Amino acid sequence: MKLLPELENLLDIIAKLPGIGRRSAERIAIDLITNKNDVFGDLINALEKAKNNITCCSKCGAITLRTEDPCKLCTDSSRDDTVLCIVENPADILLIEQAGVYNGRYYCIMGKISPMSNTGISDLQLSKLERRLENKRLKEIILALNNDVESEATAQFLYDKISGHNIKISRPAMGLPAGSGISYADQITLGQAFKSRLRLQ
Amino acid sequence: MKLLPELENLLDIIAKLPGIGRRSAERIAIDLITNKNDVFGDLINALEKAKNNITCCSKCGAITLRTEDPCKLCTDSSRDDTVLCIVENPADILLIEQAGVYNGRYYCIMGKISPMSNTGISDLQLSKLERRLENKRLKEIILALNNDVESEATAQFLYDKISGHNIKISRPAMGLPAGSGISYADQITLGQAFKSRLRLQ
Repeated sequence: MKLLPELENLLDIIAKLPGIGRRSAERIAIDLITNKNDVFGDLINALEKAKNNITCCSKCGAITLRTEDPCKLCTDSSRDDTVLCIVENPADILLIEQAGVYNGRYYCIMGKISPMSNTGISDLQLSKLERRLENKRLKEIILALNNDVESEATAQFLYDKISGHNIKISRPAMGLPAGSGISYADQITLGQAFKSRLRLQ
Repeated sequence: MKLLPELENLLDIIAKLPGIGRRSAERIAIDLITNKNDVFGDLINALEKAKNNITCCSKCGAITLRTEDPCKLCTDSSRDDTVLCIVENPADILLIEQAGVYNGRYYCIMGKISPMSNTGISDLQLSKLERRLENKRLKEIILALNNDVESEATAQFLYDKISGHNIKISRPAMGLPAGSGISYADQITLGQAFKSRLRLQ
């Protein structure tokens, strides 16, 4: 049986979303079509509202309202201007904010260097970083990138770019994650956790 | 930081789709917002088109166009009227059709008995099944439900309902899946594969 073109088209688009394959796309589409509570309509409305009202901050890249650009994280005068946290994606800013451990500014480079997916340095959002580095008040940059190979390469690139300036550069600690333990850790994590072990007494 | 209500609302709805959790919802939403190729607009269009044009066949439950109800699977005179395949979801019909191994009719019960998610017999689509069973041409019913406990219970319920009629009842074979092997099989699958082993010589 050939699929209906309307369904085929929808499946193609859903399957391109991050983390969703063809089978999941089928499940989602069929769930939408068969659901009795009009999740379908709610989803379309929510997507339209988000599309019309939400954008990325033109200064730091965080998610913000179109009517609120630069975003609150950039304009909030109670935040610490001396620390800048560089992240790969706007979603990372949400996660760090939800953890509530950081009160400085952000800068999102919108990706990482990834030859496998054809993303080079020119695809990263770096144009406004230079100006941020010129800011005399800036004392420390936290490279809060991920721990995979491509992110490490990106971090190294950023390190080289920043290290000429008189700014402290740091990265979040590596070690065992909460709610897990030695039995579940991979070798690299375990190695880092032992190397950076904390003295208790 | 509190999330934007437009984003919060979108995340809530995406996270309710099957197989998607909160973290995936965040990744998807941020990808839509930051994607340069207007996947966002394409997705909204495709959803609207699907919502307006696609429905479930009123006879068998398969996905079909609103302008084509009953669906082609029900009306196609070249298909075999003597076999009826009962499935849990319209998506299962797509999968079976894609495998190209079956040429009979379908009937979708739209779910399974699942006390955990508050789905009972009355939530299943059974009203039109009785009439299908009365069809004198019907010789065999294939219970193509899944293999988990809830689906097994549902299959047992259907078996009891059908067994009074003079109709052959079957189910797809259990065994090792293609592209896998003994090293990857769980005990139950392996047990079934050995019990139903095929004689080669």
